[in-house]
Amino acid sequence: MKILVVGASGTLGQAVVAHLGRHHRIITAGRNSGDHRVDLRDDASVAGLFAAVGRVDAIVSATGSVHFGPLAEMTAAQFEIGLQDKLLGQVRLALLGQHHLADGGSITLTTGILAEQPIRLGANATAVNAAVEGFVRAAACELPRGLRINAVSPTVLGEAWDAYADFFPGFEPVSAARAALAFQRSIEGVQTGQVYKVW
Amino acid sequence: MKILVVGASGTLGQAVVAHLGRHHRIITAGRNSGDHRVDLRDDASVAGLFAAVGRVDAIVSATGSVHFGPLAEMTAAQFEIGLQDKLLGQVRLALLGQHHLADGGSITLTTGILAEQPIRLGANATAVNAAVEGFVRAAACELPRGLRINAVSPTVLGEAWDAYADFFPGFEPVSAARAALAFQRSIEGVQTGQVYKVW
Repeated sequence: MKILVVGASGTLGQAVVAHLGRHHRIITAGRNSGDHRVDLRDDASVAGLFAAVGRVDAIVSATGSVHFGPLAEMTAAQFEIGLQDKLLGQVRLALLGQHHLADGGSITLTTGILAEQPIRLGANATAVNAAVEGFVRAAACELPRGLRINAVSPTVLGEAWDAYADFFPGFEPVSAARAALAFQRSIEGVQTGQVYKVW
Repeated sequence: MKILVVGASGTLGQAVVAHLGRHHRIITAGRNSGDHRVDLRDDASVAGLFAAVGRVDAIVSATGSVHFGPLAEMTAAQFEIGLQDKLLGQVRLALLGQHHLADGGSITLTTGILAEQPIRLGANATAVNAAVEGFVRAAACELPRGLRINAVSPTVLGEAWDAYADFFPGFEPVSAARAALAFQRSIEGVQTGQVYKVW
């Protein structure tokens, strides 16, 4: 398959590229690196990416930022960071990308354990991840031509554990390589509207 | 209790005001009517509302618009309508409102059955409602002073059935009066981080 991976240079993206690259042709994209540059917060940038890449069999997003901070101090502007980036950015990739997928192709977005399991400072992350999963659940019902859409929800990654351990007390990290397996399940499997939890 | 109801003139809001008004002092607010005018899409407008209303025991939102339309034609700009209105509008009310609640006070937001049960044209609605529920789930863990936050998730209202029946095939409508009971449960009950489903 010809697979477009956005966010390919991140910890998760690198693992996805390494795993899927064994059996597929991977095209990488990212804000600052990769075969193509793309800013998911911008319609024209995403449209330009697909114009350059052409038809693909699978679209993968392994990217997206949210705001972390105390609820008592959180502003609507801070909350909007995650809405524009991890939520609307991934939705924009899916909305524009659906028209560039070959029949039977798939879209796989990234959420995270915080969708279901809140942590301190994580109200924006929980809302954003839950929204992406909601989008996937609903969009799967409308996609034509055998197109599918799923989400992968990893817990905190082992590679990021040193930086994030204090925010995830008692959580059990997983390797990015293990999370990458779930992308393969989404792309090569038959299901749609699913959230593949890696935790 | 002194209860602020935003969106008080809508079908749901009217029922909430009628039900809660039997035993509580209700202050109504809305975009175009009510004791106070407020635009939840604007920080200054919401701050002005609380400056005028003062300390309250409960904040209720019974408002919020989303975009309905086919996924194949949906743009990111259309998807953002629901993000700015029903999602960020209600989150803004909660973020600013938390500082104007008396100890033990509550915030009750409105989602809807589409959070879990997608319908055709409803990808934005499912994502937005799921996000509000995610926010409630996470925010409940951080609120101090015995403050609580919940969501009420009604199915389609009987009062709106003539207009919406074609979009909700086989759904069983409920009366706004029945949905209003769930707001009482949230306000007078003890739970937090809950989604009260009225379906």
